[in-house]
Amino acid sequence: MGFFTRPTSVIRNTYSNIKETKFFTINHVHETILADAHHTSAKYKQEISEFDVTDLEPEYKSQHSAPFVVNSPLQLSMEFIEEYHIEANNTILVIGKINELYVKDELIENDGFINLSKGNIAAINGLDGYAIPKLKTRFSYQRPKTNVNDK
Amino acid sequence: MGFFTRPTSVIRNTYSNIKETKFFTINHVHETILADAHHTSAKYKQEISEFDVTDLEPEYKSQHSAPFVVNSPLQLSMEFIEEYHIEANNTILVIGKINELYVKDELIENDGFINLSKGNIAAINGLDGYAIPKLKTRFSYQRPKTNVNDK
Repeated sequence: MGFFTRPTSVIRNTYSNIKETKFFTINHVHETILADAHHTSAKYKQEISEFDVTDLEPEYKSQHSAPFVVNSPLQLSMEFIEEYHIEANNTILVIGKINELYVKDELIENDGFINLSKGNIAAINGLDGYAIPKLKTRFSYQRPKTNVNDK
Repeated sequence: MGFFTRPTSVIRNTYSNIKETKFFTINHVHETILADAHHTSAKYKQEISEFDVTDLEPEYKSQHSAPFVVNSPLQLSMEFIEEYHIEANNTILVIGKINELYVKDELIENDGFINLSKGNIAAINGLDGYAIPKLKTRFSYQRPKTNVNDK
């Protein structure tokens, strides 16, 4: 699993934290924390924790020291693996391994599918737009229509 | 803009098409073509066009030969730029440059924001789940709360 971070010519707290500690968490943003989650994009000094300037609460339950966000319906405990410098736009692709996965029970369907909409998890639109999607449909695994490959 | 493709140990038509022609298109999936769009994941032989086995229709309007999908609310004309082999999971990150962007007028808000939900564009959940999100809110650009950085 990976994410892109912008050039490190300005200070990137998230990136430098990860490189230093090797561990981080990914917490899905859900409806009740939308505004606070968006606020964490503000450029605070490195020594200021976003947990101190929002109502988001840290949760320590992993083997390592990176906190999760309390009540996030889906929480991932990540370990830094590798990074790639992307020349095309001077960004960095940071890749981590999922060490632990915490999912609220009510999101898990009988076949193991994780239904994000049951956790009111947000989808983003651009840099500042948020929706709370509701699952509409699932489709089966697709195979070629009969005999088309044999024509 | 980029996307990941799985190992090329099996034939990947999308990947080999792009490497050969250097051009491709990205077409947002919207509500009325959900089932056909999902069906394009079926493994057809290289010489079979997904346009021939679905109701999706090709649209040629770009300088190059790659077709768009008719009526897709947001269409991108892409040119291959570079690729990275991701060691962690043996995938390839394919990066393209956006040469042309076609957006239906009704998606564009007064400030230039592209409201995907006005095009009934799908969000995905896992490999086979689809939602049609409706934009809930937009937030302003966030700055640190007053004086917190000065404490």
